[in-house]
Amino acid sequence: MSGYDQTLEPFLWRAEAIHSDREIVARTHEGINRYTYGEYADRARQLANALDALGIEEGDRVGTFCWNHDRHFETYFGVPNMGAQLHTINPLLPDSHIQYIVEDAADRVIFVDPSLAEKLAAAYDPDAFESVEQFVVIGDEVPDVSLEPLTDYESFIADQSTEYDWPDLDQEDMAGMCYTSGTTGKPKGVEYTQQMMWSHTMAMLTPQGLGIEDSDVVMPIVPMFHVNAWGMPFAATAAGAKQVFPGPAPDPADIAQLIEDEGVTITAGVPTVWLGLLEYAAENEVDLSSLERVVIGGAAAPKAVIEQFDDLGVEVVHAWGMTETSPVGAVAHLTDEMERAPYGTQVDKRSKQGLIVPGLEFKVVGDDGEEIAWDGEAFGELLIRGPWVTTEYHERPEANETDFEGSWLRTGDIVTVDEEGYIEIVDRADDVIKSGGEWISSQELENAIMSHEAVSEAAVIGVPHERWQERPVAMVVVPETTDRDQLTEELKAMLREEYPKWWLPDGFEFIDEIPKTATGKFSKMDLREQYAGEELLEEDAPADAAPDED
Amino acid sequence: MSGYDQTLEPFLWRAEAIHSDREIVARTHEGINRYTYGEYADRARQLANALDALGIEEGDRVGTFCWNHDRHFETYFGVPNMGAQLHTINPLLPDSHIQYIVEDAADRVIFVDPSLAEKLAAAYDPDAFESVEQFVVIGDEVPDVSLEPLTDYESFIADQSTEYDWPDLDQEDMAGMCYTSGTTGKPKGVEYTQQMMWSHTMAMLTPQGLGIEDSDVVMPIVPMFHVNAWGMPFAATAAGAKQVFPGPAPDPADIAQLIEDEGVTITAGVPTVWLGLLEYAAENEVDLSSLERVVIGGAAAPKAVIEQFDDLGVEVVHAWGMTETSPVGAVAHLTDEMERAPYGTQVDKRSKQGLIVPGLEFKVVGDDGEEIAWDGEAFGELLIRGPWVTTEYHERPEANETDFEGSWLRTGDIVTVDEEGYIEIVDRADDVIKSGGEWISSQELENAIMSHEAVSEAAVIGVPHERWQERPVAMVVVPETTDRDQLTEELKAMLREEYPKWWLPDGFEFIDEIPKTATGKFSKMDLREQYAGEELLEEDAPADAAPDED
Repeated sequence: MSGYDQTLEPFLWRAEAIHSDREIVARTHEGINRYTYGEYADRARQLANALDALGIEEGDRVGTFCWNHDRHFETYFGVPNMGAQLHTINPLLPDSHIQYIVEDAADRVIFVDPSLAEKLAAAYDPDAFESVEQFVVIGDEVPDVSLEPLTDYESFIADQSTEYDWPDLDQEDMAGMCYTSGTTGKPKGVEYTQQMMWSHTMAMLTPQGLGIEDSDVVMPIVPMFHVNAWGMPFAATAAGAKQVFPGPAPDPADIAQLIEDEGVTITAGVPTVWLGLLEYAAENEVDLSSLERVVIGGAAAPKAVIEQFDDLGVEVVHAWGMTETSPVGAVAHLTDEMERAPYGTQVDKRSKQGLIVPGLEFKVVGDDGEEIAWDGEAFGELLIRGPWVTTEYHERPEANETDFEGSWLRTGDIVTVDEEGYIEIVDRADDVIKSGGEWISSQELENAIMSHEAVSEAAVIGVPHERWQERPVAMVVVPETTDRDQLTEELKAMLREEYPKWWLPDGFEFIDEIPKTATGKFSKMDLREQYAGEELLEEDAPADAAPDED
Repeated sequence: MSGYDQTLEPFLWRAEAIHSDREIVARTHEGINRYTYGEYADRARQLANALDALGIEEGDRVGTFCWNHDRHFETYFGVPNMGAQLHTINPLLPDSHIQYIVEDAADRVIFVDPSLAEKLAAAYDPDAFESVEQFVVIGDEVPDVSLEPLTDYESFIADQSTEYDWPDLDQEDMAGMCYTSGTTGKPKGVEYTQQMMWSHTMAMLTPQGLGIEDSDVVMPIVPMFHVNAWGMPFAATAAGAKQVFPGPAPDPADIAQLIEDEGVTITAGVPTVWLGLLEYAAENEVDLSSLERVVIGGAAAPKAVIEQFDDLGVEVVHAWGMTETSPVGAVAHLTDEMERAPYGTQVDKRSKQGLIVPGLEFKVVGDDGEEIAWDGEAFGELLIRGPWVTTEYHERPEANETDFEGSWLRTGDIVTVDEEGYIEIVDRADDVIKSGGEWISSQELENAIMSHEAVSEAAVIGVPHERWQERPVAMVVVPETTDRDQLTEELKAMLREEYPKWWLPDGFEFIDEIPKTATGKFSKMDLREQYAGEELLEEDAPADAAPDED
């Protein structure tokens, strides 16, 4: 190799060296925390020393179970810079998934928020958590939960030096890890090398990515356990931008307040968040004048949201990605040509998943195995590859067999590509539903429902929902004699035992049979088509079923 | 490795896929050539097929001896995408350097401009050029020069297919090569891997680099044999920007015309070029209204140039780099804080070499071996490392010993760093002079001068020059009895034999002794200081001594 390795460390070094006084601000349970990159870097080094003292070595995994705040951010550089691997765990998952993930990753330490400690304790299982030697609660006091041994973050780092000689790492070293909920039930681990994270960070700085500059004030609403808040904290550091972390369960009023108080210029999250903010802004005095760009991802950006933000002078930047793509793969910027198109055309383009980010490649393969025409009509599965796209899952040989084609990741998204190169998702892999930006495994729900002796067949599909974009509905086949009301109650009770509230289907529909594919599998595509437009949601998702609620 | 390799190919793929109709324009001897990325990509593939047919394989080196134009640009992707290595040769070098370079690189093919064919033929030496199996003149006719075998570019690619299945390359594969004139006489080869070129390209897209977007119209005046025109054609392709190539020896009128006709938004070159353009603009009706940014590199950006362009509403972006750094390592953007500083302070900052580009690291080491304070006063040698900074020269073990410190490149530049992190060059490696953006080896001139029997000691130093930034002056020690006028004439005649006109010293100064360092070496730093402010240039550099003249 001729150039030096690509690692995250120079980004922190640069921020500290050049933008030492730039602020990092966090909303916490205790109020607003505020410090600078200079102080941040000191604390990241203290953290590394504390992990050293605990015996954490290069290649070890360190888990986090936290919302978006400054101390979670300290693990973002503190852990990978010392050569350990940062594993951000999604606290919204079912307990069984959390157990699976911790065991699979063999995390040696887990950092946990006070408000999530009980959740983690509920998921705690001595076998699954056998590798965990230390829990560190990110708060000033140690809560009374059954996590052992447990210490608090400030005590953990307090006596440590602010000096740390970061090792010269290899770009192939693992830096991050995030699990994705797949169709096959068990979450799949995606590992990020230093090189992958470096590449994604640089790509996010480009105008074709998010174009983050040091004059920006960056606030990710998207949780930091979702592919590192879409990589924004890394890109913001590389740029030397001010950063704002919204803390646990920010509601629209919190978000509006932070934008106003801190002068946020760019923020990011799933559509649900922005629907909430727009509603709030319509009914309250809100000053969003600092805001320049809202990055929408995790689900399609509704045109109405784009237009309403345009009215406020805020540009919606629709981005597409996956856990497997670090995550940003496409961004719906207007090309120079489209900048001169009529507004309606522009909104059309901006509501699509967008243009591939420079440095990546994609192709779309139709049923016949051939690449489709770029005419906005023909469709096929999206395959993607590049320096920040994984080429394998962690220890999942079967998934690696099916989900990749050589160096290409099979995204499972069914897309069209128009003549200008904009990708649009028109359907998706059969078995996943996304509610408020969080995956729900339809297959797991189906298996649970079908385990009831009265049920012969069941398929769970996602139906469009104004607030959550999509909610699950169960399509169930039972003998004619079955008491359907009673069965529905039984199924609900059964699912409630095992899954978070927001996983529970909002409707149970009894049908004659599930349509099948040629090979005899359930065809959800046909099912969705068949029931399109029907009122399938018996009850609206309750507000507290929200996946991003604390 | 978990992500896919970093190679140049996806940049061309993306430009062709998304920006197929965007134009590539070149000024040539025959007039303006104009085509699109779509047509460009076809021709790059035809070129690759032609090289295939010739037997060029992965790892082979392909040389170019050309100005800035569309067909030279076809080699930029055509050669590296097939796995061969593009070696851009500087036609302004002394013949002996050209011979050394071609032999050292073992180029198998050399592409040459019609207007440079005689120059190449003059440098031709059967031993040094033994590896060269084919010369391809980039013109419609084959000139009558002694280069064998010689064909013309259009015939070379004419019958080739526009399809080519680019191989899946490794990011460690060599993609480019460029020689730098060093202090030790012999040029040193810097090889660029696919990864280095990918990294530099991404960095140039970032706002902290050059921030190139698809709406830009990019025109490098800096020659394409100077570290790939500072990487601009690659970055422009990655962005999908329109590109304009100014062709052979553009004068200020040509440059102004191209800016006006093609709507150039960003251009780049050495200060000499911009001094010429500003002079021309002051005396002629010129419409530079499309121009947004002028990148100045290769020598310090004079404050007057920054201010004059400001008056025209054009932002000067001062960038620093070296052949070894691909080349851009620092760019003098204003930080968010400096954006609010008084204009005078801003011009001060913008005239410095600038802020390190994200992804790289530097340190400045003083005489005591310690890192200097960042106070704008303390100085030391600049060391730099990162993914697009080389860690070795091609087959030069001695230079690798002295010019690197582990993974750090010793730049030879003596710099200060101010509190805001701006690097400023205050002195430079002892033995190099830069005239109009081109290196002159003072050591070679000294050795030549000292080979005259009447000369006991000689040192060649660079003295500031308004147009060329720096010109060589020879400081010569001779016995008192020597006829100095006659000697001067003899020395001039002798040097004229071996070196290009623009290398010849513009002054010969006879002094008593050359100041020495503690170890007995010539101390050019003392010499420069001693004679600072004196009128050393006996005659002004003639216009036709210009290094960038055809």
